[in-house]
Amino acid sequence: MTQFNQAAFQTANDLEENLAEYRVGSTTIGGATLFDLGIEHRGGLVAGEMLADVCLGAAADVFAAAEPGAIGTGVVVKVATDNPVGACLACQYAGWPLSVGDYSAMVSGPIRLLRGKEQLLGKLGLSESGAIGVAVLEADTYPTEAAVLKIAEECSIEPELLTILIAPTTSIAGNIQVVARSVETAMHKLHEVGFDVSDVLSATGSAPLPPPALKSIDGIGRTNDAILYGGSVTLFVDADQSVIDEIGPKVPSNSSSDYGKTFGEIFASYEYDFFKVDPQLFSPAVVTFVNLRSGISRTFGQLRPDILETSFGCKSQ
Amino acid sequence: MTQFNQAAFQTANDLEENLAEYRVGSTTIGGATLFDLGIEHRGGLVAGEMLADVCLGAAADVFAAAEPGAIGTGVVVKVATDNPVGACLACQYAGWPLSVGDYSAMVSGPIRLLRGKEQLLGKLGLSESGAIGVAVLEADTYPTEAAVLKIAEECSIEPELLTILIAPTTSIAGNIQVVARSVETAMHKLHEVGFDVSDVLSATGSAPLPPPALKSIDGIGRTNDAILYGGSVTLFVDADQSVIDEIGPKVPSNSSSDYGKTFGEIFASYEYDFFKVDPQLFSPAVVTFVNLRSGISRTFGQLRPDILETSFGCKSQ
Amino acid sequence: MTQFNQAAFQTANDLEENLAEYRVGSTTIGGATLFDLGIEHRGGLVAGEMLADVCLGAAADVFAAAEPGAIGTGVVVKVATDNPVGACLACQYAGWPLSVGDYSAMVSGPIRLLRGKEQLLGKLGLSESGAIGVAVLEADTYPTEAAVLKIAEECSIEPELLTILIAPTTSIAGNIQVVARSVETAMHKLHEVGFDVSDVLSATGSAPLPPPALKSIDGIGRTNDAILYGGSVTLFVDADQSVIDEIGPKVPSNSSSDYGKTFGEIFASYEYDFFKVDPQLFSPAVVTFVNLRSGISRTFGQLRPDILETSFGCKSQ
Repeated sequence: MTQFNQAAFQTANDLEENLAEYRVGSTTIGGATLFDLGIEHRGGLVAGEMLADVCLGAAADVFAAAEPGAIGTGVVVKVATDNPVGACLACQYAGWPLSVGDYSAMVSGPIRLLRGKEQLLGKLGLSESGAIGVAVLEADTYPTEAAVLKIAEECSIEPELLTILIAPTTSIAGNIQVVARSVETAMHKLHEVGFDVSDVLSATGSAPLPPPALKSIDGIGRTNDAILYGGSVTLFVDADQSVIDEIGPKVPSNSSSDYGKTFGEIFASYEYDFFKVDPQLFSPAVVTFVNLRSGISRTFGQLRPDILETSFGCKSQ
Repeated sequence: MTQFNQAAFQTANDLEENLAEYRVGSTTIGGATLFDLGIEHRGGLVAGEMLADVCLGAAADVFAAAEPGAIGTGVVVKVATDNPVGACLACQYAGWPLSVGDYSAMVSGPIRLLRGKEQLLGKLGLSESGAIGVAVLEADTYPTEAAVLKIAEECSIEPELLTILIAPTTSIAGNIQVVARSVETAMHKLHEVGFDVSDVLSATGSAPLPPPALKSIDGIGRTNDAILYGGSVTLFVDADQSVIDEIGPKVPSNSSSDYGKTFGEIFASYEYDFFKVDPQLFSPAVVTFVNLRSGISRTFGQLRPDILETSFGCKSQ
Repeated sequence: MTQFNQAAFQTANDLEENLAEYRVGSTTIGGATLFDLGIEHRGGLVAGEMLADVCLGAAADVFAAAEPGAIGTGVVVKVATDNPVGACLACQYAGWPLSVGDYSAMVSGPIRLLRGKEQLLGKLGLSESGAIGVAVLEADTYPTEAAVLKIAEECSIEPELLTILIAPTTSIAGNIQVVARSVETAMHKLHEVGFDVSDVLSATGSAPLPPPALKSIDGIGRTNDAILYGGSVTLFVDADQSVIDEIGPKVPSNSSSDYGKTFGEIFASYEYDFFKVDPQLFSPAVVTFVNLRSGISRTFGQLRPDILETSFGCKSQ
């Protein structure tokens, strides 16, 4: 298997060489290197693309570019990969909820392959061994030394060989990183509905970049909505067409009973208990299956710009 | 003249270094190096961009990216070049129908410049000499040793210095390679209607990527339709405006008597005899002439998403 | 401060290595190196991207790509930067009207930072010292030796270390260079209406590429209109929302009393006296403020394809 941590580490090195240009900070905590792309340092558009790139184990292409008329910021985040299982599930999926003392953060990125504790990774037979680990943290504050040491320990690496990139969902880079998850949410949903994800050969996706919110809770709402109601994904698959016909309608977000309201409204209605939200909700608005085994292409779901406007709170004059 | 074969060879070397990542196979036939981008190996999006790049003699930029709302796969293939004669006619045009024993394939790419037998290349004074040759084959099966040796012999190169890239129109890469021909079809049509193609300075084009078909015959139909009914090309020219006014209406596909049906229907109506299809048909749906000599821009033709939907067999739910 | 002249010089070196491919000429005047991207040499799309890149001090990304349906040439010029003050105001702004004997040209690019005479740069505290200078000239003819020596002298550099890139607005590259100013016009307008431009963290912009005109006066008209009526800019800011609410409506072009006619008509109505044109006019059609301090996004202005069609003189058949 490709060494995703090694590849992501090289992208992190590019960050190191251009800290001022990318408005990124670099410091050391517990021996590990921490890159700050949006807490005490501002980060920006390029920092966001690089954060997403690292998160995907450098196995995908990510572009954030102006698309006149796009809802929210007028910027759309696109992702493309020929290795959707490796890039999105092995690396990008935020499958490690870290909690050490008072500190908590969602961990994603190729580091998860070294830890080897997630059920998802186990089922898919995904793992990696190596001395170097690269983690992405979605959080508002720097990790404590205890948190850093815990990450290194769980992954059996020296803290000195651990690289952490951090950005909150209220930053430009943090927003780009989350909205670059359009393909990942489709891949995870496919796995949940029982589709063999190794049958997905290549994938592309896009979603509008929302305006960064003031509070994390709102940032989570907007970035989720960007994908749930504005995300559009194409999956190039090699599968029985009868399987696509059956599971297709279950993949986009409109297959969920929670569909139709902003994520903020849904989350509030469940009193901010994440586990009460219908897990079927987390997927792109539109999913197209391009099936090489049948030669048939089918599209499921629909874009909902009306809900995005409410979520993003955009006003035109 | 630029050494297109040399430039394409460098792109092929990039392939060699990343075979697993691009899902490309590499083998040797008759001493020549064969890269398989879609027959026994799956290839993918990046493989397709590189195949198109090689086919264009590395003298153009090719991008396959998600464009929400694009018909078919939601992916659009864009091409741009400041050397449309060199990239598209000298290299990309599929002007060499190879037939050796039972093996047949369409040959394109800069190798044609070494062979020097095509009328088109002769009329335009396009040729290249050199020891290295790079060919692109559109075919479903690997070439026989006899076919490989025939290519080398006709081009007066050693088989060991011949590089062949192969992909069928039923693969992702093969589809991208064909759909990257939007500018090429416009250039060839211009030549056919008697326009001096050396007056085209730069060009851009785009066409929707169709879902790869199951059978080659259907793949040819869909990729042709992608350009005939979905292709949009801009030509930056230096020409008398009266010439543009006269030949302009003859350039887009709607100038053909066969226009208005899917290529599959047209082809079937001629009992699959390629030479009975009106040669005027092969051109983009829309062609814009931006004339630097007059300062006037004019657009001819129209997009036909309705025909694309029929051709691609797309279904939305 | 980043050495913008040094960074731009490296891009100019890339030009030097690919003169034939980019259709760019290179010569020496008064000891300085002059790159011709559109006067005696034709230049093209890549030359235009590189010209814009140099003009922005290599501190932004510029792409000219096919966008089916875009008015004019079907090509859109996009720009993105995490350093809008540095890239757009310190470098790209055409703030130096050079006039030496009979020769006159607008000078832009990082060279202005060495001259240090512009009020705008002084107010913003922008300057650079160094031995190397890179200038962009918008003009129809090569500078005289006296003009070149004047540039070097005003910037206190040796002519041998001065690099000049030149293109007229009637060339492809010159058109791209001007249309890449969508963000710059927004930044300059912000400064004019009293907004602290250092509060703009990142920005993206896009504008349609017009067909190059035959005469410079028409070229200036079309490129201005591309931004005034087709430009769309997003500014990621950190500011009091009340300030945005107040100055927002003043930023897009529709805040001007001259708004609503083509620039050519406006210019003629003032008998071609540039200083009589309302300075409020020079800004993009649409400006979106994404405010990180408030979490609020607001859009002002509107696109006017109707005026662009008149300005560009496009005809469809």
